[in-house]
Amino acid sequence: MNFADPATLNKTELEAGATFAPRFDGNGLVTAIATDIRDNNVLMVAHMNAEALRRTLETGTVHYWSRSRNSLWKKGETSGETQRLVEMRTDCDQDVILMKVEQLGRGAACHTGRKSCFYRRVETSDGTVRLVLDESQPLFDPAEVYP
Amino acid sequence: MNFADPATLNKTELEAGATFAPRFDGNGLVTAIATDIRDNNVLMVAHMNAEALRRTLETGTVHYWSRSRNSLWKKGETSGETQRLVEMRTDCDQDVILMKVEQLGRGAACHTGRKSCFYRRVETSDGTVRLVLDESQPLFDPAEVYP
Repeated sequence: MNFADPATLNKTELEAGATFAPRFDGNGLVTAIATDIRDNNVLMVAHMNAEALRRTLETGTVHYWSRSRNSLWKKGETSGETQRLVEMRTDCDQDVILMKVEQLGRGAACHTGRKSCFYRRVETSDGTVRLVLDESQPLFDPAEVYP
Repeated sequence: MNFADPATLNKTELEAGATFAPRFDGNGLVTAIATDIRDNNVLMVAHMNAEALRRTLETGTVHYWSRSRNSLWKKGETSGETQRLVEMRTDCDQDVILMKVEQLGRGAACHTGRKSCFYRRVETSDGTVRLVLDESQPLFDPAEVYP
């Protein structure tokens, strides 16, 4: 499976056409967002290179590119928290991938053991800002899952 | 309003603490996602620098940093499609901002006039990939709104 080169498309083709031409950045990556098919909540945000995108589309199991490990990352390979692709979308200028996924395993997308990586609200009061943790408990203990 | 420097936090403080320390990248930006408070759909993905983040929290109206114009961008300043911040979250390693917003104006977050920037599905068939446009009509004509 090959992707078109966005440089070969004009703005109208890029924004309104049927040609999938992901606009990888200088590091060969696009931002990838996974949302939960059940409630539409954002589970996590990571990155994909062309190979991760291809494997995700070909296998139906979500793959990312790990910037910290500098390697292809089958989500859940270590933790068991795999993601089944239900639907993929891209945005107007094709530099972001949005996926609706079924979060498998224990249902925890985040490496901290929580369902979503976005478990803290940003709150302001009298000109100061702080984070407030959701009350939900982690679904696994990271110390046990990532030995 | 000032934000903490993430370099002053250890991993536990960064991931589980109450200190908001957005991890701006080498260009001083974080990825910012706006979702619709009504149905949780992702409306758009853009970037924020510290000033955009500060103004968003202080005014309750969403501001981004425009990478193409290299300037602060009050969303909707030209189009009227402003966004009212309802809730802000950050992720485990604090390099993404997630906002639930009320999309004002005509209800179109995308510069193409559509409600969401993610108006095309990525579909595969027999090893080829193409984009399929949602049937929803644009809510405004970009040629009229951006003269």
